Amino acid sequence: MRKLNVAMIGGGFMGKAHSLAYAGMPMFFSPAPAIPYRKTVVDINDELAKAAADRYGFESYSSDWRKVVEDPGVDVIDIVTPNNSHAEIAIAAAKAGKHIICEKPLARTGAEAKQMWDAVQQAGVKHMVAFNYRRTPAVALAKKYIEEGAIGKILNFRGTYLQDWSADPSSPLSWRFRKDVAGSGALGDTGTHVIDFARYLVGEISQVMGVLSHFITERPVQSGSVDKLGTVKAGADVRKEPVDTDDEMTTLLRFENGAVGSIEATRNAWGRNNYLTFEIHGEKGSICFNYERRDELQVCFSNDPDDRRGFRTIYTGPAHPYGDALWPIPALGIGYTETKIIEAHDFFSAIVNDTEVSPNFYDGYRISVISDAIIESAETDKWVKCL
Amino acid sequence: MRKLNVAMIGGGFMGKAHSLAYAGMPMFFSPAPAIPYRKTVVDINDELAKAAADRYGFESYSSDWRKVVEDPGVDVIDIVTPNNSHAEIAIAAAKAGKHIICEKPLARTGAEAKQMWDAVQQAGVKHMVAFNYRRTPAVALAKKYIEEGAIGKILNFRGTYLQDWSADPSSPLSWRFRKDVAGSGALGDTGTHVIDFARYLVGEISQVMGVLSHFITERPVQSGSVDKLGTVKAGADVRKEPVDTDDEMTTLLRFENGAVGSIEATRNAWGRNNYLTFEIHGEKGSICFNYERRDELQVCFSNDPDDRRGFRTIYTGPAHPYGDALWPIPALGIGYTETKIIEAHDFFSAIVNDTEVSPNFYDGYRISVISDAIIESAETDKWVKCL
Amino acid sequence: MRKLNVAMIGGGFMGKAHSLAYAGMPMFFSPAPAIPYRKTVVDINDELAKAAADRYGFESYSSDWRKVVEDPGVDVIDIVTPNNSHAEIAIAAAKAGKHIICEKPLARTGAEAKQMWDAVQQAGVKHMVAFNYRRTPAVALAKKYIEEGAIGKILNFRGTYLQDWSADPSSPLSWRFRKDVAGSGALGDTGTHVIDFARYLVGEISQVMGVLSHFITERPVQSGSVDKLGTVKAGADVRKEPVDTDDEMTTLLRFENGAVGSIEATRNAWGRNNYLTFEIHGEKGSICFNYERRDELQVCFSNDPDDRRGFRTIYTGPAHPYGDALWPIPALGIGYTETKIIEAHDFFSAIVNDTEVSPNFYDGYRISVISDAIIESAETDKWVKCL
Amino acid sequence: MRKLNVAMIGGGFMGKAHSLAYAGMPMFFSPAPAIPYRKTVVDINDELAKAAADRYGFESYSSDWRKVVEDPGVDVIDIVTPNNSHAEIAIAAAKAGKHIICEKPLARTGAEAKQMWDAVQQAGVKHMVAFNYRRTPAVALAKKYIEEGAIGKILNFRGTYLQDWSADPSSPLSWRFRKDVAGSGALGDTGTHVIDFARYLVGEISQVMGVLSHFITERPVQSGSVDKLGTVKAGADVRKEPVDTDDEMTTLLRFENGAVGSIEATRNAWGRNNYLTFEIHGEKGSICFNYERRDELQVCFSNDPDDRRGFRTIYTGPAHPYGDALWPIPALGIGYTETKIIEAHDFFSAIVNDTEVSPNFYDGYRISVISDAIIESAETDKWVKCL
Repeated sequence: MRKLNVAMIGGGFMGKAHSLAYAGMPMFFSPAPAIPYRKTVVDINDELAKAAADRYGFESYSSDWRKVVEDPGVDVIDIVTPNNSHAEIAIAAAKAGKHIICEKPLARTGAEAKQMWDAVQQAGVKHMVAFNYRRTPAVALAKKYIEEGAIGKILNFRGTYLQDWSADPSSPLSWRFRKDVAGSGALGDTGTHVIDFARYLVGEISQVMGVLSHFITERPVQSGSVDKLGTVKAGADVRKEPVDTDDEMTTLLRFENGAVGSIEATRNAWGRNNYLTFEIHGEKGSICFNYERRDELQVCFSNDPDDRRGFRTIYTGPAHPYGDALWPIPALGIGYTETKIIEAHDFFSAIVNDTEVSPNFYDGYRISVISDAIIESAETDKWVKCL
Repeated sequence: MRKLNVAMIGGGFMGKAHSLAYAGMPMFFSPAPAIPYRKTVVDINDELAKAAADRYGFESYSSDWRKVVEDPGVDVIDIVTPNNSHAEIAIAAAKAGKHIICEKPLARTGAEAKQMWDAVQQAGVKHMVAFNYRRTPAVALAKKYIEEGAIGKILNFRGTYLQDWSADPSSPLSWRFRKDVAGSGALGDTGTHVIDFARYLVGEISQVMGVLSHFITERPVQSGSVDKLGTVKAGADVRKEPVDTDDEMTTLLRFENGAVGSIEATRNAWGRNNYLTFEIHGEKGSICFNYERRDELQVCFSNDPDDRRGFRTIYTGPAHPYGDALWPIPALGIGYTETKIIEAHDFFSAIVNDTEVSPNFYDGYRISVISDAIIESAETDKWVKCL
Repeated sequence: MRKLNVAMIGGGFMGKAHSLAYAGMPMFFSPAPAIPYRKTVVDINDELAKAAADRYGFESYSSDWRKVVEDPGVDVIDIVTPNNSHAEIAIAAAKAGKHIICEKPLARTGAEAKQMWDAVQQAGVKHMVAFNYRRTPAVALAKKYIEEGAIGKILNFRGTYLQDWSADPSSPLSWRFRKDVAGSGALGDTGTHVIDFARYLVGEISQVMGVLSHFITERPVQSGSVDKLGTVKAGADVRKEPVDTDDEMTTLLRFENGAVGSIEATRNAWGRNNYLTFEIHGEKGSICFNYERRDELQVCFSNDPDDRRGFRTIYTGPAHPYGDALWPIPALGIGYTETKIIEAHDFFSAIVNDTEVSPNFYDGYRISVISDAIIESAETDKWVKCL
Repeated sequence: MRKLNVAMIGGGFMGKAHSLAYAGMPMFFSPAPAIPYRKTVVDINDELAKAAADRYGFESYSSDWRKVVEDPGVDVIDIVTPNNSHAEIAIAAAKAGKHIICEKPLARTGAEAKQMWDAVQQAGVKHMVAFNYRRTPAVALAKKYIEEGAIGKILNFRGTYLQDWSADPSSPLSWRFRKDVAGSGALGDTGTHVIDFARYLVGEISQVMGVLSHFITERPVQSGSVDKLGTVKAGADVRKEPVDTDDEMTTLLRFENGAVGSIEATRNAWGRNNYLTFEIHGEKGSICFNYERRDELQVCFSNDPDDRRGFRTIYTGPAHPYGDALWPIPALGIGYTETKIIEAHDFFSAIVNDTEVSPNFYDGYRISVISDAIIESAETDKWVKCL
């Protein structure tokens, strides 16, 4: 079986998820499309890089991503760094002819994303953006139902991504709260996953009307590594710095095909953890999903008899997308791990089979354009076209 | 105990609910503020009126609402007719010095509602609009928590009212689909309940940005009585007429106090029945409600310890608003009946004690103004101020 | 329409529910089978009886139930007293030729119930036991599915009735905790409702293997009326008396038709309010119900396609049993009121049409026999036959 | 860091889970207690063993488990074979001085389990039984609450394990339906997980009163490998053989500490997938868990104020057991993988730190004794002591 050497740039929380995916993917998918060999991991200094290599099972490590990107022994570049370095690394990787998987959002702006999309097109390499949640089997099942016409023409999409990990004003100022690094706040961090759902399940978005809210205007500076999500309780003498990203994004959507929709994304919703949901109404049925109960998809078919119609709670398993490769019984349990394993499978399949995979850099670019439009709309209080 | 004579104008589905409330209120609330005596019921002809009197236990009946409104033996006028007759009846009733309870929405437009609000002010009578859902004990509990500061300053409100009773294109063209009678579609019929929630729980709405959708452009004409909600399957030779009201309303909201929000209302959401929900995020907690599970309120308090924080599912009962008067154990079951019984209690209390009750015609007027603004916004694609 | 004069013996919480049912039944069911006229209410003294008559809308009152039972102007005797008086009143009523509806459990023992059953048989009157929960439309829908064969041969039944209103040791010693009055504790008060479900939905019970638990051995004596369910917080000087009834009942079941099952009933389950549930597995499907979410029935059909099989959440409405008479849209809300209104409808239909109604005194007798068997089983630690 | 060489005996579905755990454990837990090195995998022939080694990342493979067990280069024996080979392998491994982790149930009978427990005691090796579900963070949180006294003295335990993967009579006769291989059916396969919960959370079980049901008496013989759970649709000419294990187990429990309980386990419950649940009532609160929604624990505390008491839905995360090592935000998603990773962590910690781990072979032995008692009880219709 073909082995492809992976260099992972970044060793934080997402690095863990990606490494686990590389180790686990060939155990789930048999035969695997390829073996993703954990060749090299890069972090900001040798000490962190060595620790990451030890922990995540990479053969070697480095603190010089440029050198690694040029390494002829590397086939795939996996970018799991903060958002402000995605473009530079990806463009260099593309020029070096590497296949690229990049964490989301692809870039801080549409312009930046466009450069990345241009670069991979010119290089002819495979490219993917890690909007892993659409790999949840229940989301893939929703896609299947829609493609089969089971709920008819789509009328409406409502999506949310609600978390509470930064609702506490004493939670620290990680890079996710800094516009120069992250590009935006809840919009880019969580809202983009919902935009990805909307485009995947309903179609291209043509106009947006957005509102961005800023609730917590300064936060204590986080000590230690800045690429973790963990909340550090601030002591009395902690220095505070301004937050310049949005805490919450709400937007109306118009789709190219005439459907309408709305999205709400926030990290200030007490009690919500990873409440990534959608509800879709079609002429012939409805579909609902909530990642907090990700084994399940809710679907209602209008053509059920009147006395037997209601939302069906489908637990995904062997009868559903990716199910054969996963667990032999529904509800043994899909976790974050499985979404990343499927993502790895689909990316390496595309490489080996020379096919397209989605969401790719084009999708990532489109999502950045839509995000830019939401920001412009929020600033101007006007509908903004994004197509 | 004081007995107040009620004349109910209209004998359809809502007439049933109101009549049951009058019969049941003094059984639940003891002592009752007053006995609502079912004096006279009015319908469009004597036959229907007599049937309503028999069925709903009224002493007498009439097909002449003007005469009834003038009757010195009547203390209270209860308006449960289609929307286009609310203003005329209410203004006449006010002039005749009657206390008035009117079904929602108060009027077809803000201008119409203004006349009604002016009339009751001039007459000095008590007035109420029957947005009964805010009388659900769980909704009143949400209000209590908010007033106690339990969730802190409110940041965001998201409300929905989703139904599917008109998702089928063969469901008939009742008056609820005719603009001249209803004023609007999903907006006025269901969306206004959510607007009432928003104003009640969060505060006054200052701006809206709405989208109205029209999915089903013609429907079979309904035979027989037009004041029922029931779906009649259309035969092959049924005549169709155009629908000129909205099937779905989505809107963004800005509140006077700085909070933001959104509402989605539709009657085309397969699988949703009476899915009237809200989710409110505050600085110190969150509250969620779904009328389909109306005995329950979900609340999360940020000051719970980290290892014990999560949404609490509170089943309303004797320890909560109105609970002493209702059932001795939570989950014996709050239904539509109980919301109407509480509504009757609060209205008759206001009459007897000469106090204000809410939502009254002012609230109904404000909701009509906001509805007008949503329509204008949907037509112009601009944020519209409504304060 | 025929009017039947009702004398209600007892004016407590259940009296409220029954009175509301009599007032509301003809509003829901049109035409009603008969008008239940609230003729006379009886309580333990004239003062309480007068208060009940005023509150519940009865024409007259009395403190002498024997006289009322003999009154030729009375057609129906409604027994809503504590359990120890059911037999005496019912037997006298039967001898006087009155139709009888009696609150559950029918009697304190099988022997007592047998006398009642014998009495109504000899008198040829109509008789019903008020196990109202099986009148919940969702439960009636479960029955309909089962009768249609939709879930095939039944394999297993699991029922629970969990409450927490007496979990607090300081909640008072009402009659429900005294064996001489109540017969038993959780078994008779709540467990019998589940036994009624089991017999209604699965079939006759042939053997039981029970365990009874006594957690709280004494309670403060309740001051004031003893026929309320309300919890009174005990003061420091409150006298305590022993509890001699069970707090919790758990039992295994064998059905005549080969199915097996289990029941758990308790009033000491913190956080459970009226958690009356069943789950039934059949060869071709499963059905689940939880009264705390009583508008809903969950059903899974094995013959759904593999990729679309899962529990359907059916919200009962016009398409389901009793739905035409109730509310025009599912989830407007079924409450305790509606279960009692349907019960009244079915009882008066049986009287007027001279048909059988169920559960009747025979069913009540069988449930008492089964309850006796559970007690015997708990005492002997052996399976006890009850058929 | 210390590396421990693992030989895994068996390469089926459970092999996948264990291999993933070995790969992932050091990525989650940092520093890891030890590196579980995937040294050798054994299957019934070289071809299958080689395939397993390739797929699961083992350095070598073998079809001779005895030789592997004797290999001085192996530190840990991991037994993931069908139940009838557990004892022989484990006893040999113990004699060879290997630490042992064995899939559940430990053995087919109490007698067999006793030999295994004796063997590991004599050898002084570490031993664990892979009842992984108690490693679900939410279950560990329940244990923590109970140990803190948060729900007081436990009164009642109700557990279920409901699946439907063998509800279809045409699903094949795997080894799980053969008593000589599996020992028992639903009892051993799924019921034992609930018994493990009961002992872990409540305490030792002293008596049982069980019922075993046999619904499907013969099944088509499964072609191909027999150690998969997958359902194969039988063709017309498939040979059928008898099933001699139970399809369903229901039992009452008495605990040593006075609590009572019940368990239902079945593989014939249409619509249930991995419905492994418990509900525990204590004097001061209640706890509920459902593995199908395994990120969540439901807990109710009696000392919450009356107007704010209700089940809290706790999503486990960094603030809860094992949470620091898992994902940085609750509901990113615990799956089967994570339960196995935690299991591996706890086992290797015990080896490295020379501490006890639970559930170990003693626990496995006790569960086998209790299972034997349930079978005896079902055969004799009597309560059977098991302590």
